[in-house]
Amino acid sequence: MSGDDRYARGLEIMKTVQGPDRAASILEGLGAMHPDLPSYVVQTGFADVYARPGLDLARRQIVTVVTLATLGGCERQLAVHVRGALNVGVSSEELFEALLQVGLYAGIPRALNAIRVLREVEAEAS
Amino acid sequence: MSGDDRYARGLEIMKTVQGPDRAASILEGLGAMHPDLPSYVVQTGFADVYARPGLDLARRQIVTVVTLATLGGCERQLAVHVRGALNVGVSSEELFEALLQVGLYAGIPRALNAIRVLREVEAEAS
Amino acid sequence: MSGDDRYARGLEIMKTVQGPDRAASILEGLGAMHPDLPSYVVQTGFADVYARPGLDLARRQIVTVVTLATLGGCERQLAVHVRGALNVGVSSEELFEALLQVGLYAGIPRALNAIRVLREVEAEAS
Amino acid sequence: MSGDDRYARGLEIMKTVQGPDRAASILEGLGAMHPDLPSYVVQTGFADVYARPGLDLARRQIVTVVTLATLGGCERQLAVHVRGALNVGVSSEELFEALLQVGLYAGIPRALNAIRVLREVEAEAS
Amino acid sequence: MSGDDRYARGLEIMKTVQGPDRAASILEGLGAMHPDLPSYVVQTGFADVYARPGLDLARRQIVTVVTLATLGGCERQLAVHVRGALNVGVSSEELFEALLQVGLYAGIPRALNAIRVLREVEAEAS
Amino acid sequence: MSGDDRYARGLEIMKTVQGPDRAASILEGLGAMHPDLPSYVVQTGFADVYARPGLDLARRQIVTVVTLATLGGCERQLAVHVRGALNVGVSSEELFEALLQVGLYAGIPRALNAIRVLREVEAEAS
Repeated sequence: MSGDDRYARGLEIMKTVQGPDRAASILEGLGAMHPDLPSYVVQTGFADVYARPGLDLARRQIVTVVTLATLGGCERQLAVHVRGALNVGVSSEELFEALLQVGLYAGIPRALNAIRVLREVEAEAS
Repeated sequence: MSGDDRYARGLEIMKTVQGPDRAASILEGLGAMHPDLPSYVVQTGFADVYARPGLDLARRQIVTVVTLATLGGCERQLAVHVRGALNVGVSSEELFEALLQVGLYAGIPRALNAIRVLREVEAEAS
Repeated sequence: MSGDDRYARGLEIMKTVQGPDRAASILEGLGAMHPDLPSYVVQTGFADVYARPGLDLARRQIVTVVTLATLGGCERQLAVHVRGALNVGVSSEELFEALLQVGLYAGIPRALNAIRVLREVEAEAS
Repeated sequence: MSGDDRYARGLEIMKTVQGPDRAASILEGLGAMHPDLPSYVVQTGFADVYARPGLDLARRQIVTVVTLATLGGCERQLAVHVRGALNVGVSSEELFEALLQVGLYAGIPRALNAIRVLREVEAEAS
Repeated sequence: MSGDDRYARGLEIMKTVQGPDRAASILEGLGAMHPDLPSYVVQTGFADVYARPGLDLARRQIVTVVTLATLGGCERQLAVHVRGALNVGVSSEELFEALLQVGLYAGIPRALNAIRVLREVEAEAS
Repeated sequence: MSGDDRYARGLEIMKTVQGPDRAASILEGLGAMHPDLPSYVVQTGFADVYARPGLDLARRQIVTVVTLATLGGCERQLAVHVRGALNVGVSSEELFEALLQVGLYAGIPRALNAIRVLREVEAEAS
């Protein structure tokens, strides 16, 4: 697959997860940091991983939200991917349950910090 | 709910996830470390969190495996919960895909270390 | 012990550590995130762990502050528990010494970030 | 204070915490890794931090054990400092309680991994 | 070497890395947190480690920026050391490349958060 | 660039860093975990990042070693990349200095654990 094909495939998935407007806005923000970052994120993240068969997008978004919550200090990315999760059909209550469970293994503060981001995303959407 | 009810409810979920034999073996190992640990893990982990409605057990096991993979240094617990994930119907390929995606957000070494545990669990099971 | 007893026992400890007003305010904040969170934190954290014999409350608060400082990215919880530590009789200088020592094992930035929170808590209290 | 004084002061504290034989053995291990490491650890760790007034050695050892447990992946250092904690009068039950509480904030796997090290240290000592 | 010599040697390196004005400002900030912190950071960090032969200051600054980016949650220290890196001759593009590579091993969010700090430092400097 | 070109470019860099025999052995190990892993690592890691201009291979290996040391729990990958660093001309003493400096920011245990891996790699090579 050529670089152009990777980009097109990744962008399609990214638009499905984030919606076309938010995808454009995220890529613009990345481009302001370095001209190579938009294609890097689209190709490496979305084309090479998200576009793979074998795990549906709802579960992929749960994986991403849980990883970011566990890491801590990724509130910006967490907000982006909470929106993506809600967008591909993961319910707010499922995300809450997933995050409460993160607390068992990564500690309650990581869970609470991520639940706070979840509520902020919901508040701005309403 | 009384402490006895919490224990009974938690133990039931734990047996569903791990199978009765492995559940007994895990609790025996915890009891060897401190007499309060088996009931603590059964009640706090399984009764208070896993038994909650709102997220099915397959997704819960994905959450656990992804959290442990992201943390690193939890190979022992990861093996236990990879077995649990396979036991409640998550496929090996779904776990591989989830872990490859962990690599995007937590780095490729965390992904590879967890995939190695996945393969070791499968090897011992066959 | 029934759930009601766990809640009562945990709330009593929480009030001892945080003072009744701050305990109420923390629980209100948790309740705004999810109706199950106040009882979850009171029961799982305070009743099941803090209320155990075997470690006095001053040492328990040192443990909490040190764990949060080491994790990083938990400034909100750190402020809460620094207040709790001061409240149960740990001195500001003991907390400073504990955090300087965290720096040996978790790196100087984690220590400095936590010392900053300690000073902010003291500044607002004075 | 000259470098010699720092070394002497640090070594004295290190011997108090670890006992003279274990201190010598730890320094020998460090020296096998690099000739500057023994004096670096004695001066930076023990003279500059542990020797400070303001926190007694028992609390200092609790701080160290809790930091190492929270970090994860420091089993070797954890064993050394569990021995030191027991040596300066922290009881095994206090360490267990401290580590169970680490689990609230850093997750149950970090707690269980450290409790396992505690039990291994006790087993080899008996 | 006496404590005075350690301080003088460390301060000289710190001024070389940060410039005399920023070095003074950083030390003033540390002193506001605790009177022992300026000498602690100058002696432990700059005299005992940065002043060692065997690694040039440009590579030392890359090491510091990469460590802070990997840890996460150290944006304040990251800004200080990005400035130091640019000051001792590491180019902005080298820092970008180093941080993109951090993303492979510590995950893309840690890389993006640090690249954001790099851009903020550059924006305030221009 | 097509996928074949990415693979060829990445493999060339990987062989330069690791030597042809170790590169083949690493890829064989990855292939035993999943048939897609060798091309994933070669393309995502080596072609998309290591092959970029703007940072020489010696500095890239320092970045990788420092990131892995900071993360902890990546001893296997650390051994691979310590070998790579020595192979592209980073001296053992430079790696030691870099790792001692990691200790300032990520804590002395992370530094010591990585220095131990450095010494093990050197011992097996001699």
